[in-house]
This record gives sequence, C-alpha cells and structure tokens, in this order.
Amino acid sequence: MLRIGLLGFGTVGSSFAEVLAASGADARITHVFNRGVVRKKTHERAKFVPADAKWTERVEDVLAAADVDCVVELMGGLDPAEGWLRAALSSGKHVVTANKQLIAYRGGELFELAAKHNVQLLYGAAVAGGVPVIPGVSQGLSGDQIRRVSGIVNGTCNFILSSMESGAEYATVLKEAQRLGYAEANPAADVDGLDARAKLCILARLALRAEISPDDVPAQSIAQVSAIDFAYAKELDCTIRQVSRAEVEDGAVQARVGPMLVPKISPIAWSHGTQNMVVTSGRFGGDVVFSGHGAGGHPTAVAVMSDVRAVSLRSIKVRLPAKKMAVSGDCIAPHYLRFVVSDRPGIVASIAGALAKYGVNIDSLLQHRGHTAARLPFVITTEPCRISTVVDAVQEMGTLPFMVETPLCLQILVVDDPETD
Amino acid sequence: MLRIGLLGFGTVGSSFAEVLAASGADARITHVFNRGVVRKKTHERAKFVPADAKWTERVEDVLAAADVDCVVELMGGLDPAEGWLRAALSSGKHVVTANKQLIAYRGGELFELAAKHNVQLLYGAAVAGGVPVIPGVSQGLSGDQIRRVSGIVNGTCNFILSSMESGAEYATVLKEAQRLGYAEANPAADVDGLDARAKLCILARLALRAEISPDDVPAQSIAQVSAIDFAYAKELDCTIRQVSRAEVEDGAVQARVGPMLVPKISPIAWSHGTQNMVVTSGRFGGDVVFSGHGAGGHPTAVAVMSDVRAVSLRSIKVRLPAKKMAVSGDCIAPHYLRFVVSDRPGIVASIAGALAKYGVNIDSLLQHRGHTAARLPFVITTEPCRISTVVDAVQEMGTLPFMVETPLCLQILVVDDPETD
Repeated sequence: MLRIGLLGFGTVGSSFAEVLAASGADARITHVFNRGVVRKKTHERAKFVPADAKWTERVEDVLAAADVDCVVELMGGLDPAEGWLRAALSSGKHVVTANKQLIAYRGGELFELAAKHNVQLLYGAAVAGGVPVIPGVSQGLSGDQIRRVSGIVNGTCNFILSSMESGAEYATVLKEAQRLGYAEANPAADVDGLDARAKLCILARLALRAEISPDDVPAQSIAQVSAIDFAYAKELDCTIRQVSRAEVEDGAVQARVGPMLVPKISPIAWSHGTQNMVVTSGRFGGDVVFSGHGAGGHPTAVAVMSDVRAVSLRSIKVRLPAKKMAVSGDCIAPHYLRFVVSDRPGIVASIAGALAKYGVNIDSLLQHRGHTAARLPFVITTEPCRISTVVDAVQEMGTLPFMVETPLCLQILVVDDPETD
Repeated sequence: MLRIGLLGFGTVGSSFAEVLAASGADARITHVFNRGVVRKKTHERAKFVPADAKWTERVEDVLAAADVDCVVELMGGLDPAEGWLRAALSSGKHVVTANKQLIAYRGGELFELAAKHNVQLLYGAAVAGGVPVIPGVSQGLSGDQIRRVSGIVNGTCNFILSSMESGAEYATVLKEAQRLGYAEANPAADVDGLDARAKLCILARLALRAEISPDDVPAQSIAQVSAIDFAYAKELDCTIRQVSRAEVEDGAVQARVGPMLVPKISPIAWSHGTQNMVVTSGRFGGDVVFSGHGAGGHPTAVAVMSDVRAVSLRSIKVRLPAKKMAVSGDCIAPHYLRFVVSDRPGIVASIAGALAKYGVNIDSLLQHRGHTAARLPFVITTEPCRISTVVDAVQEMGTLPFMVETPLCLQILVVDDPETD
C-alpha cells in the first residue's frame, strides 16, 4: 500500500483523487494539503478522498508525516514548491509532480537528490498532460538518437490560434478562451511562450539529452498574430501554430518557441483546440508523433496516476492483470455495400427488399456515371446495424441473378466526440 | 555490462547490431545465432558485431552459454521460437523479442515463466515497430481506464490501400509492394489480417487488460477492395484503411480487423505509406494518438534497443545522462514577413532594398485586394536565411516612414522527408 500525501486540491488534485479512487491501485491518499481546507472539503470531488485522510493547511504535516510514502505535488511554481520537494526527497519520500517550471529549472539537481536518497522523482504530467510523451520518449525511444523535438505543448495558444483560423481576431478569441477557462486573466505565461519553453527544456533533457535553461530559449509572443496572417498563411498552404522546437546540431542546441507558419501537410498542423502534439525525429527510428489532450484535470490526472502506479509497483514494467475474455467480432455500425450488377429494371427494388427483410435501413445510394450496363457498380450505405445481420443480408443478395461480382461489405468507422469532460 | 545472445541476423537483427553499436549502452553482443553463418558474416552490418562474438548455427550454443544475460529473439513464429524462449527464461536469462505471434498466443504463460525466474520479458517491438505504443500504454497510460484501442498496425496493408487512393488497382499495387520489399511473395498474413490481429491481441492485453486469442478475432481480407471503392469512399468524405479495433463493453470485447471506411477527419485517415498509428480512448484521458514508422529494420531495432536498455538498467526509468549545453535561438529558415503600410510609390523597392542590404532573398510577394491605401497589408516570404539576420532587417524596416504597424516576422517550418533509410 502506497500512502500518498497530496499537495494541492484544485482541478488537477481533485481529478487525481477521482482517478485514483477508480483505479483499484494499491495506493491511498492519507493527507491533503491546501489553503482553505473547510471550503475544499465541500468540493464535489472531496468524496473521492478516503474519509480517514487528514486535511491540513500546514505543509509540514504532510512532509513530516511518517505515514506518507509518496508526495504528489500539484501546486506548481518554483517557490515554495522546490523547498517542499527537497524536504520530501531528503526524508526518503518518493515524489510525483506535474510542476514543469520546477523540473525545467531545477530538474538536474532534484534528480540527483532523489538518487542520493534512493527514491523516485517522476513528472510525466509536466509536459503535454495526458499525452504519454515523457514515458514514450524516456522508455520507448531510449534506443534511438533523437536529433529534434518539436510540437505544440501549450493548449491555450493552440486554442487561440486554431480558433483564429476561422477569421476571428486575437483579442476576441483570447476573451473567449478566458471565458471558457482555457486562458488565465493574465495570459502572459501562455501567450508569451514562457510555459511552452519550460516544457521544451524538459523535452530537450529527455529526448536530446541536453540540459538547457528556459531563460536561454527565445520566446516570441503570439499576441502580434492577426486574422489576416491566417489568410496569407492559407495561400501558402500553411496554418499558424505556436511551435516549440529544439534541435541538436554540432554539439549545440537550436531552440525557440513562437508562432510559426506550419505547412498543412505537417502533423503539427493537425492539432486543433487545446490538443497537444509532440514530434520526435530520431536518427534510426525517424519521426514519431504523440498527440492528445494536453491539459485539463482528468487527462493530467491520468499522467499523475500512471506515475503513482509506477512508484507503487517499483518495477521496470507496470504490469496490470489481464483477464481472459470472450471476443465478439459483432458490433453495431453503419456499412458500405458495393455491388457490381448487370443492369436491368428492378435491381434497386430487389436489393432494397432484401435489406428490408433483414431490418437494415438504407442511408444513401450512390451511383457514378460512365460504366457499362453489363458491369454497373453502385453503392449503398446503411444506417447503423449489426455486422452479422448485414453480412447475412449481403450473402443472400450475392445469389441474386444480376450480381456480376460478390458484393463488398465494409464497416464505416464513426468518429466520436472526445469522451473527456 | 549486459551480454546479449542474438537470435537472427536478418534485416532487424543486423539493424539492431548497428543501433546497439551506436548507442554507447553498457551492453554487447557475445553470440549470434543464424543459419548460414559464413554468408551472414559477410553482411555489410556484420562489422557492428564485436570481433570476439561467437557466430553459431546451433541455438543451444546461445541458450546454454554462461556469458549471455539476455536473449534477443528476432526470428519470429511460434515454433521453434517458443521452446527457445522458454529455455532462456527458465535458465535465468532475460528475453527481448519482437515476436508478435508468440506474445499474442503465449504471452500470458511466458510472462508467468519470466516472473517465476525473476527475469524480464520485454516485447516493445512486437507492435508498431518504432512507435513506442507498448511503453506508452503500459507506462504512460496505466493510470487511465482504456475502453477502446484502434489503429493501423500493418504497414503492408497501409501501403497498398493508401497507394490505391490515387486510382491504382489492388493487384498492381500489391506487385509494386512486393517489388519494394513491403509485401511477401505470399502476402496472405498481411492482407488477410492475420499479422494485424496478433498485434491487436497484444494491445488488448495491455490497454484493455483483456486476454483474447487471435483465433477468436474476425479478420476480413483487403484483397476484395477495388479502386472504385476509393472513389465512392471519397464521395462519403472517407478513405479506406485496414483498421484493427478492440473495445470493451459490458465485460466482453468487440474486436475485428479488416478494411473499413474511415472519415477523413479521423486521425486514422492520416496514415500514409507504411506508417503505423494507434489511437487509445480512455475514460479519463480521452483519445491519445501514437504514430510513426511501424516496420523496417532501423525503427524496429530502436524498439528492441530501448528494451535492451531497460533490461540493462533494471530500473523503473531509463535515465540517460544529459549534459549542459549552450542554446542558440538562431537557425536558418524561410520567413514570413507581414507589413501594414500607408501606400505610396516606392514602398516595395524600399523594403526589397533593405532586405537586399542584409543579404535576404525574396521568395514571394503576396498582396490581397480590398484594403484601404492608408492601411495596406502585404506579405513577403523569404528564402532560407538566419533568423537573427531577418530580425535585424525587419527592425530597420520598422523605422521606415510608411510603416503603420510593427512588421510581423514568423519562421516558416519546413517539412523534411523522413530521415530513415
């Protein structure tokens, strides 16, 4: 049982409590530190904190507690977080943190401190929230020599710039972003690139194995970009994104953060809304893309929870139990049916009749010109129905006398809305 | 020092030797097993195997060797590989393998055997080659509850189907794929979906924590898809891909592999050529996308090498040394310059002159209609030049009397060709 002292019960902290409660992991929260404990205990997600956990406004109560094995720090900022985490590591407690500024500026020293005290310091949530780029790079790409890392690591800027694509001006979109809670009242850390460059330095350490200081990375603000720039960018087959980019060349690092024109064919142009995306370019493995939800309580909490599991299992692989399960290839989906027929009257009626007999509804019927009557292709798309049903119907139709080829039946994938809140 | 016994010196095995030699990792090859050792030793990448390594045609020489800590198996197939790896694990050797059939069919038992003998069994290369989806999911997303995993895990089918998009017929493209070495003489394992469904079962175990048998997963061949289906798919705002998909619902798994219509707005439609892509959908973290080179010697060797590093360091985190490095924000790139001027004769000449003075070449000049002469925006794109130079030039131009706004200067990202061989 891993006993957790949680520092911070805001959006991410309370989401973490929920994700932990749902996880079944051998870990539980024993302490919660936050200002205004009385108010925090009325938070709708306070119910996910075990009833016997201690809520406190004194951080020492957590840092000095004998029944805390791992401190989870979700407050951010260099000071006082640095002192807290140094105290935790020095007293033999593991640390999981989402604090990008701290890891970017002080990571090197803190890793040494953790190693000295034989404890773990994990920070998977510090870059790109719920996108597992940190474990993906540190574990899965450790065998490559990564030369460049680039991407979109600030959801606020990505929301603003991808919204401006449809013609809105910066000031209008910024206000909307503030209304939606995507941007702070003082948006400088995001729009001026200070948040992104801290994350870029963390990525540079991991991917390029280069220790660089955020203060040395030039950052250009997105505030000067206007709607008209998107019109010109479009003409150049580009869009505009806040890109963070670092590359090793001849023993030095080229790094910068700022709005850049991105060709539409680049994966970096795919990101919309608050999405994050990181692209690594390796000497042997080529380009690898990671993308997903970079911010928000739940996605960030997933990264924190993954680190907590790793600490809890103290093994190279987080191996979760898998249970034997039955498989069904059947599901409900719309379908694409393509027929090649020898044309004659009554074909559509006959096919539609066969589908109706099986209870399959037609969504659309497509027929292109320019084919001979002897080999006439046409297509029917169906409303969602069981795969097994439509396969049975198609099999029966395959025997109809005007069929020149076996009909082709393909499932049509449906794109869901993202399921996160 | 981790001593490696390498089983198989084909494309992946020889690439692994090269990647290992370049890695600086504390690991070396002591044994190579392959048929036709005399011929293999003349392979151009045989030079990456240490001169004192033992080449053998008897697998027992590797499995029984006292100076092998880790067996790296890159031959594939269930039999005889299963017996070899059981012998290796039972004699206390770690195993790293790229064998998807073995892990899909026998993974459960082999993991137990490894645990019993307190050794590691890693298989990061078994799914999606160089794309770190296995460490990404097992480590980075272990904190989420993944409900669905879908994607493109067979590069051969993706090459065939994405080539058919431009109008070619299946048989023609298959021949081309065979000529390029992307498809085997007997392409059944790829086009009929048998390769993909083994990978899907591995992903289901990791992501959905469901143990399912490849034999239970329906697989539809792509051989029946014809060029005309792409024309119809396009009309439906879709393309066609071989999709592998598994989803947990009500305690059962829905899984299938086959060609499906994929909406163009889905990330799954982005994959071209031999690229692989996996999308996981989590309860808390939403959709996460992994993409990159799924096959080929070097990308697959990166995944193998990453596992070897993990075995070698036996720690939760493969922590590679990072060194302090200087940062330059300067690099050579094309630029986008946007001016807002009060129109008068000679403006272009004046700006062009200023750029020429700094040695910056103009690539294009864009000016849209419909703006007033008092606030006329226009855009210049430059040929690649130093950022610092263009910033100096723009600063000087900012003082020109007709400038109504500070000029905006943005770097234009250049999309490289993939850098793998």
